[in-house]
Amino acid sequence: MSKLFMFEKPQGMRDTLPELYELKQQVKKAVSSEVEQWGYKSVQTPTVEFNETVGTASAILDRQLFKLLDQEGNTLVLRPDMTAPIARIAASTLKEAHRPLRLTYDAPVFRAQQYEGGKPAEFEQVGVELIGDASASADAEMVSLMVSSLENAGIPSYQTAVGHVGFVNALLFEVLGQETRVEEFKRYLYEKNYVGFRKAVDELPLSSLDKRRLYELLRLKGGTEILEKAEELTESAEGKKALSQLKQLLEILADYDMDQNVMIDLNLVMHMSYYTGTVFEAYSEGLGYPLGGGGRYDQLLGRFHHEEPATGFGLRVDRLTEALGKEKKPLASDLCIIFSRERRKEAMNEARSHRSGGRSVVMQEITGIQQVDAFSAQFQEVQYFIGTNGNGGSGS
Amino acid sequence: MSKLFMFEKPQGMRDTLPELYELKQQVKKAVSSEVEQWGYKSVQTPTVEFNETVGTASAILDRQLFKLLDQEGNTLVLRPDMTAPIARIAASTLKEAHRPLRLTYDAPVFRAQQYEGGKPAEFEQVGVELIGDASASADAEMVSLMVSSLENAGIPSYQTAVGHVGFVNALLFEVLGQETRVEEFKRYLYEKNYVGFRKAVDELPLSSLDKRRLYELLRLKGGTEILEKAEELTESAEGKKALSQLKQLLEILADYDMDQNVMIDLNLVMHMSYYTGTVFEAYSEGLGYPLGGGGRYDQLLGRFHHEEPATGFGLRVDRLTEALGKEKKPLASDLCIIFSRERRKEAMNEARSHRSGGRSVVMQEITGIQQVDAFSAQFQEVQYFIGTNGNGGSGS
Repeated sequence: MSKLFMFEKPQGMRDTLPELYELKQQVKKAVSSEVEQWGYKSVQTPTVEFNETVGTASAILDRQLFKLLDQEGNTLVLRPDMTAPIARIAASTLKEAHRPLRLTYDAPVFRAQQYEGGKPAEFEQVGVELIGDASASADAEMVSLMVSSLENAGIPSYQTAVGHVGFVNALLFEVLGQETRVEEFKRYLYEKNYVGFRKAVDELPLSSLDKRRLYELLRLKGGTEILEKAEELTESAEGKKALSQLKQLLEILADYDMDQNVMIDLNLVMHMSYYTGTVFEAYSEGLGYPLGGGGRYDQLLGRFHHEEPATGFGLRVDRLTEALGKEKKPLASDLCIIFSRERRKEAMNEARSHRSGGRSVVMQEITGIQQVDAFSAQFQEVQYFIGTNGNGGSGS
Repeated sequence: MSKLFMFEKPQGMRDTLPELYELKQQVKKAVSSEVEQWGYKSVQTPTVEFNETVGTASAILDRQLFKLLDQEGNTLVLRPDMTAPIARIAASTLKEAHRPLRLTYDAPVFRAQQYEGGKPAEFEQVGVELIGDASASADAEMVSLMVSSLENAGIPSYQTAVGHVGFVNALLFEVLGQETRVEEFKRYLYEKNYVGFRKAVDELPLSSLDKRRLYELLRLKGGTEILEKAEELTESAEGKKALSQLKQLLEILADYDMDQNVMIDLNLVMHMSYYTGTVFEAYSEGLGYPLGGGGRYDQLLGRFHHEEPATGFGLRVDRLTEALGKEKKPLASDLCIIFSRERRKEAMNEARSHRSGGRSVVMQEITGIQQVDAFSAQFQEVQYFIGTNGNGGSGS
């Protein structure tokens, strides 16, 4: 191990300086206020959880988990997502709370990065979970609320893709006949490695009809016409059911006038392995990765011994601020009062009256400043209470 | 290791449910808005830092650190305080920013607990750091801002104690003559183990005059009259200088009309080993532990190769909410619209118009509810859009 410089941070860890902090606060506030207006209540969970419970339930790759040991030798993890911890709460402390249960969070999550310089290892998510409601209305509420939150945050030119993990599972299983193969092909879809997908199809001993069904899957992206094409590809009851759920979801979104920015993407496979039904993601033009997404996870609560349907989504605060693309302006404080010792009391009274009127006021004794001009230049207005007598001068 | 129940959390880790979350938000907002009005700018630092840099600089006992390894074998820690990370930023990214630098934070910190069931291992702190100003004005700004923040948060019957680590160091060294003994006696003071302190004094081969000086130290708590008594006990230039700084601080606080709730406590030794000058703590009646505190740390920045005077304080959000002692009321959502499929669109339009007026509205399809009466009882008002026709009914 090389000697560390004192100011280094662990791989993927970042500081947030005041300008970006302000922008993040604006974005989080916009999303949270929308979510609260839809009746979601905030919870917080610990940064550290047991690996054996939340760690394994979260379905983030094991090598992406930050792990540590407690004093009894249990393996702990820094929470890699918020859905599993909230499932833990819903299945324990809030077991008796009335269903459907609407919860929201705003918290950092952690994913260890292996030599991937650019990716953050800690990032904030704002999201919601709707627990105990299996209806298509609940799915539609997720997509609508995500869209409304993006609107409220002022995200420009975004789009939402909706898919259905149940359809993908059904179609792949119909053709491939075994779970391990299904997982292999789902991985290609998750990685958006369509070349790999096609190559793997070519190499399998399948009928040309079945091969075509798999190729066709890759083309199932677009408007509602996609649903008819998909219908022709699947024969199983599971596949048909998934499509009917998706159709119902799209009808509701049309009812809500929320279908303009929504496209269908039946290749959509979320990285979280616990999704079971409808899934969706939001993208912003020019950003190479999703702003956030979510879906239905009807089996996760069962891992906490409390079978219940559930759905939810999470938005990434760092990507929302990036999509906003606002220039980070240096934050100018409103007013600075520079005073000498003798006129301290006068200066404090002046500061108090401005603060009580809502202004932000820095009070600074002049002996504490090394370069008065440079220091003063940070403020919109500077008032001086200097010397033993007289009135406060004012500059800017 | 025993089998874990799925809903267990690591020792000292807690969930925050909606009622407490709201109360915490109120408290944090009250403190942050005061701090912002005094011109402090917010920063965020990573949850995980290098042990070799921030971990050792933070001066939290090594056994209280949550440690983990990164993929290159470096030891990482969950940040045990925010002062060391902010010192890291001030000495690197913000090295060129104008001084004095006023920064604020609102973040969880981590301290591993050994079999101390009741103590939280993760707790939120809101605090400030004022970097690059060695004046008594800067010390006074810390105490005044802490007091103003407690006022703004509505904390009832609190008190602030101010002391000076430099005075304690000087007096102990004058009498004991060696650093290791000084540290031993400071530990008794930190632990408020006055019996142990007295016993240790009795056992030392000191003159009766010197023994009396140490006994007298324990009595240096009270009003400004304490300063005269303290003056008689110390002979060194360091001791006198510390008292003169403290006197100046108290004069400024009197100028600011901030001296009513402030007492002098020359036994005050903060657990953070990096304090070098003025220190202070805030207490609330009936709470067995401080709400927060801080002090001057003129040598910490030097650890990051950037010598600068600095001072700051941190308040514990959990203890502020406890001191507020407000009853946690179940949070009632404003309005719930319960609808059937056929009238979904109507229901959405109704919800939208209420939300745009600022109300919080839960929309719930009736098939998603198991017990309609119990579910409805959570809301201040319930509107029904049920059946195929007619107008929405209203209940409460």
